[in-house]
Amino acid sequence: MGSRERMIEATIALMRGSGLSGAGINDIVRESGAPKGSVYHYFPEGKVQIATEALAVYSERVMVFIEQALGRKRLPATKVRALFDAFARRVEEGNYRKSCAVGTVSLDLDADLENLRVALAAAFADWAALIARHFDLGDVQRTKSFAGLVLTAIEGAYVRCRAERSSRPFKEAGAWLAELVARRDPD
Amino acid sequence: MGSRERMIEATIALMRGSGLSGAGINDIVRESGAPKGSVYHYFPEGKVQIATEALAVYSERVMVFIEQALGRKRLPATKVRALFDAFARRVEEGNYRKSCAVGTVSLDLDADLENLRVALAAAFADWAALIARHFDLGDVQRTKSFAGLVLTAIEGAYVRCRAERSSRPFKEAGAWLAELVARRDPD
Repeated sequence: MGSRERMIEATIALMRGSGLSGAGINDIVRESGAPKGSVYHYFPEGKVQIATEALAVYSERVMVFIEQALGRKRLPATKVRALFDAFARRVEEGNYRKSCAVGTVSLDLDADLENLRVALAAAFADWAALIARHFDLGDVQRTKSFAGLVLTAIEGAYVRCRAERSSRPFKEAGAWLAELVARRDPD
Repeated sequence: MGSRERMIEATIALMRGSGLSGAGINDIVRESGAPKGSVYHYFPEGKVQIATEALAVYSERVMVFIEQALGRKRLPATKVRALFDAFARRVEEGNYRKSCAVGTVSLDLDADLENLRVALAAAFADWAALIARHFDLGDVQRTKSFAGLVLTAIEGAYVRCRAERSSRPFKEAGAWLAELVARRDPD
């Protein structure tokens, strides 16, 4: 892995820990072992550029992760539980120290990071669209809205699991959302 | 408002913006207008002490906010929608720049902040217990679990609304969770 890739990987890991604030240039240099000069060689616009590129790489990986969790199952309720169980294992394996990089950076946004904000919103939209393709709740709008709820629950469980050091928020949400899709007809 | 109170208020506002990383001593001094020396006078243990005290004040306010949103309604589905609508208005009024301080700080946690982590987990537990007292889903465990889902959805919607600059994640979650309590009997 070259310096550029190592810097991207370090940025992803740092952002998953504490968002944009944890992924300063000095942190990236330290964690990647890349020479400091190479940061501005590869990323002439600095921190926001490396963060944006790292988020794009991260977002693609989350797409693969979601697809793998959902694609192996057939029944809607089983799919929902499989997805949340996969995330539960992910946070357990990370010892509850790593969250979603898109989520952590979202909570660090301020007004002068509009380009980065658009990239975060695009990642969320891509994930929700991917989730929606795996379900059919009767009509397109309802299916899209359900996928949005799934995404909201994943991001919220990522927040809670850090404070509670538990994967229970994922399992709890998976069980309830499975119940929603198991009962297809609204009142 | 004295210096101590102004520092607490500034810390809450800064944490709601970008978590612990946004609430450094210099930031707190700048935003509160309090003399720098007074930080260590009132908070001899520094940043973590002021953060912990600010989170306790914030948590109490969220309890009042939740109680006001839920207490005025009677039907479970109406209560759920009222709660999420109240949060939707809250983020709209803050122009999508302020999240939940407990959530933002949770995503900044690292291993040497164990005391702070316990305070965050306690705030989440208090909020979930308060929500649970407003619902009855047939048995205590199921009610507690539903309250957990409500909390997870609130925290996730706070994440998404920052990136998407929209209160839709709150309204969407409110509509779905209302549907869950409107249908009391599981399959």
